[in-house]
Amino acid sequence: MCNNVINSRLESIRSLMQKEGINVYMVPNFDPHLSEYPPERWNTRKWATGFTGSAGCAVISLTNAALWSDSRYFIQAEKELEGTNYTFFKDGLPDSVSIIDWVCEQAGKGGVVAADDTAFSYNEGARMKETFRRRGIELRFDFNPIDVLWNDRPSIPESEVMLYTTEYAGENFESKYNKIIEKAIQRGANSVLLSALDDIAWAFNIRGEDVKFNPMVVAYGFLSDSKRVIFIESKKVSSDVAKYFAENGIEVMGYDKIEDFLKILPSDSKVIADTSRANYRLCNILSEKGCLIAECSPITMMKSVKNNTEIEGTRNALTRDGVAMVNFLYWLDTNIGKIEMSEISIADKLRSFRAEQPLFMGESFGTIAGYAGHGAIVHYRATEESDAKLQPKGFVLVDSGGQYLDGTTDITRTIPLGELTEEEKKCFTLVLKGHIAVAQAQFPHGTRGAQIDAFARIALWKEGYTYNHGTGHGIGHFLNVHEGPQNIRLEENPTPLLPGMMTSNEPGVYLSDRFGIRTENIILTVEKCDTEFGKFYEFETMTLCPIDTRAVETSLLTENEIEWLNNYHARVYSTLSPLLGSQQCEWLKERCSPIK
Amino acid sequence: MCNNVINSRLESIRSLMQKEGINVYMVPNFDPHLSEYPPERWNTRKWATGFTGSAGCAVISLTNAALWSDSRYFIQAEKELEGTNYTFFKDGLPDSVSIIDWVCEQAGKGGVVAADDTAFSYNEGARMKETFRRRGIELRFDFNPIDVLWNDRPSIPESEVMLYTTEYAGENFESKYNKIIEKAIQRGANSVLLSALDDIAWAFNIRGEDVKFNPMVVAYGFLSDSKRVIFIESKKVSSDVAKYFAENGIEVMGYDKIEDFLKILPSDSKVIADTSRANYRLCNILSEKGCLIAECSPITMMKSVKNNTEIEGTRNALTRDGVAMVNFLYWLDTNIGKIEMSEISIADKLRSFRAEQPLFMGESFGTIAGYAGHGAIVHYRATEESDAKLQPKGFVLVDSGGQYLDGTTDITRTIPLGELTEEEKKCFTLVLKGHIAVAQAQFPHGTRGAQIDAFARIALWKEGYTYNHGTGHGIGHFLNVHEGPQNIRLEENPTPLLPGMMTSNEPGVYLSDRFGIRTENIILTVEKCDTEFGKFYEFETMTLCPIDTRAVETSLLTENEIEWLNNYHARVYSTLSPLLGSQQCEWLKERCSPIK
Repeated sequence: MCNNVINSRLESIRSLMQKEGINVYMVPNFDPHLSEYPPERWNTRKWATGFTGSAGCAVISLTNAALWSDSRYFIQAEKELEGTNYTFFKDGLPDSVSIIDWVCEQAGKGGVVAADDTAFSYNEGARMKETFRRRGIELRFDFNPIDVLWNDRPSIPESEVMLYTTEYAGENFESKYNKIIEKAIQRGANSVLLSALDDIAWAFNIRGEDVKFNPMVVAYGFLSDSKRVIFIESKKVSSDVAKYFAENGIEVMGYDKIEDFLKILPSDSKVIADTSRANYRLCNILSEKGCLIAECSPITMMKSVKNNTEIEGTRNALTRDGVAMVNFLYWLDTNIGKIEMSEISIADKLRSFRAEQPLFMGESFGTIAGYAGHGAIVHYRATEESDAKLQPKGFVLVDSGGQYLDGTTDITRTIPLGELTEEEKKCFTLVLKGHIAVAQAQFPHGTRGAQIDAFARIALWKEGYTYNHGTGHGIGHFLNVHEGPQNIRLEENPTPLLPGMMTSNEPGVYLSDRFGIRTENIILTVEKCDTEFGKFYEFETMTLCPIDTRAVETSLLTENEIEWLNNYHARVYSTLSPLLGSQQCEWLKERCSPIK
Repeated sequence: MCNNVINSRLESIRSLMQKEGINVYMVPNFDPHLSEYPPERWNTRKWATGFTGSAGCAVISLTNAALWSDSRYFIQAEKELEGTNYTFFKDGLPDSVSIIDWVCEQAGKGGVVAADDTAFSYNEGARMKETFRRRGIELRFDFNPIDVLWNDRPSIPESEVMLYTTEYAGENFESKYNKIIEKAIQRGANSVLLSALDDIAWAFNIRGEDVKFNPMVVAYGFLSDSKRVIFIESKKVSSDVAKYFAENGIEVMGYDKIEDFLKILPSDSKVIADTSRANYRLCNILSEKGCLIAECSPITMMKSVKNNTEIEGTRNALTRDGVAMVNFLYWLDTNIGKIEMSEISIADKLRSFRAEQPLFMGESFGTIAGYAGHGAIVHYRATEESDAKLQPKGFVLVDSGGQYLDGTTDITRTIPLGELTEEEKKCFTLVLKGHIAVAQAQFPHGTRGAQIDAFARIALWKEGYTYNHGTGHGIGHFLNVHEGPQNIRLEENPTPLLPGMMTSNEPGVYLSDRFGIRTENIILTVEKCDTEFGKFYEFETMTLCPIDTRAVETSLLTENEIEWLNNYHARVYSTLSPLLGSQQCEWLKERCSPIK
């Protein structure tokens, strides 16, 4: 079966390459804000390849074409590329083919590589330039064939800006602005370029619907000791919002004016731009003027350390989300084997339970509901063709979350639908041991996520299992479900885990074609004690939803782990039971009963 | 009490600064090879300040002077600076004064800072330049007052080069050379600058006595696809060694010729230099010519993954070292309270036991023997004034090691001399739990030390304790006792722990003025299994010496931890007992008897 649409796009790109003397053209899938979920307008990689996953990079040479994506998309990518002239390369494995090596090989010494300099970060661009320079390859930024070829390309998103009041935000713009500028000055700068969409939403206290699942607006921002500017399409700014901007001294300029604005900045400007998150083109303008201060934006850290209003809001959102989850689990448990259920139908059902809850604004990402072998596909999204029927045996893995006006949620439960094999129970329990090890961790001030990521893996590693994803990601407050700068991952990240940060705790294990297991709660870093060795922190588990003890092999747990689980369930029951119907309450009592 | 010698040196430096228009002069204590233990010639910081520690940086302004050093030297530094006009700043604490901030404050905008560009790495120098540039401060590299002022400065070390045969090295120069060049070419280079003294000793299969404790010779090396050069003082090269160099196609050039050599390299040279370990001046020559490939030297990794001859040699050295240790511990245990003992006298005694062993070449570092509160000073070296008398109670911490022709050793035991407090036993046991957690770790291919460092800390952290040093360092083979690139530390290090690497496992805890505890063995990374998740590794504990169970609070150990300890002791006894005198053997049997 040949995919003519994609293959003809590929050929069109190649003819333009030939005309311009380009040997290799790289197509990542980033928007100019390097968002995790780029608005459709910027999904050039999807247009060029047909692959719909959220991560991946395509490379087109005059004779070959290939796509790289990570373990979340290994299966999906192979499927979606069927019939196209793209080869799929698995990224992130020990023996993975390196994209850059492949590009160099295709280009050859003296060759020319082209890429869009708004689609990768300054650091990434600088690294690429250096690598290509070493191998005698030219890198060009002025070739954008898809701008020419993509006829029905979506426009820049046009959702209206919504004001996000301090009732939910906990701090007004003026106060945030003052802290941002103070921190910039401390670092020898006088201004900050706001490029990441969630930084902009947080700093200006605005939200929108420009990006699916993420309540943000497409804009840039620039804050200095003398200027406050938002770069945004004017049609998105209602008169109320215009008034709010005016009252706060915020100048509104066109979205496309950011480059010119940076080009004519006074030469003594010292602009903080996060060169790992802001695009190459903008940073390069600053760098060439000698105005670039390459640092993590002060906003990124301020945003991640939640204030009390944000924490309380998230707690409340998680309680309502827990009610929705229990209603869903009760429904699933009492109907499995009796009515027909599929991956898509249960995801719809779960959405309907969430939608019953006050302040619900939508899902925080597309629900992953994977039955049996589909559970082993880490970021599986059921399609009409793949949609598996649920049977009363084995596991269904459900990873889902909600956007509530007062907080963002993200939870994974692996739900036993009936009989389980010994290996399924063993793996469930090893994952649970990892989850509990993180939940119970205590650590001194300054500890980074990479130092404790392996706590979640000790039990799995001892049995020769592991998982190829992080243990935890930061989570936004009515913002992105994946939010930096902190995380709990194998990979180094210099950000320490500080009180007020909310992070997920989600170890898993995935046995290809058989089953997948993941158990995910949100954890809040809180202060624990102060000793002669300094401050120590611990985690408070915020998520409230039972972890199914029917899948636990109790003999593999230590007494301490059993105690943690029983205490957690006691808290889940006491908090949620007053908010449930009587049958659901009865069901929850059983599911929360202590194990021995 | 005023230290006139140091204060007058300080004033002499200041008059030269004033003459040259320098506001601040920085004095780190590195030689041009950035060795951990610089030969005396290059210990300018010690000459300027009187501080003898192995780590620390002095900063001199026209009105102030200060020294920074890390937690190993907090107490020693304050003592040694007494009576001088230097202020001591503790480095590495959350509220530490940053050296660079202090330098900037002292220099002021428009000020001039000077430093010797052979005394820090290219990366460090580039960072400093950038920081100073941002703050409007000039950094000069052409001011070296100590070259002028230090009259009786020691010469460049003159020890004779010793050939290190393949009987011990396991691989000849030609084979190493071919692999080095192959790896360089794989990375787009054609040559490698050898700057670290242990890289040079390993690559050329030579040893020497230029550096205390580290059997190396002061030299540079340069290997390319067409050239093999060693830069070394000719008087160090005997006719035998000259013959060996000639036979291996190795050209001998003067030690001081390295800069000129790099300056006239062909312009198409692509030279790998490790910019984090090679000095600024040399890298900058390469960088300005466009010849610099900034990468970890391929030698560093090749050296750290030991071959079978090196592993077997180290195993044998550790067996002999274990015999020396048991003889020492037996002597200590049977004589404490009966004869007078002090920190210095027991270190001497231990050296004499090691010296009885075949192939012993000297100590691998100065023994740290710290009784009671002195044990809490991490890198304590007893002086005649501090030398504490041992009493039959509390702990003495003894960290020591030997250089044997077939391997390098490093071991710490915390030895109970009599009655212990509950806290002493609790802390000893928490440290032991950490030690066992690392010893028992299993982990997939690609795992870095920073991911498992915290395994050693989980038990301590839960009780509000920690330690401000790494859990493990790489160890050389008849080379440096501290060897990169791998380690097990809080700080990120991208090097994975690979089979064949030898690393220390040495958690500890230090209660100021009360006691210090550390338990250190050498562990070898070995293959464990191969599953659908890839290769998994584990550690083999190589060191053979009892861990004193009289200090263990058994109730704090899990069954699994007790089993590990009993198995370890069974192995210690069975390996060492045939090599001991009958009384020592009897004593060891008791010390290795299983606990319950």
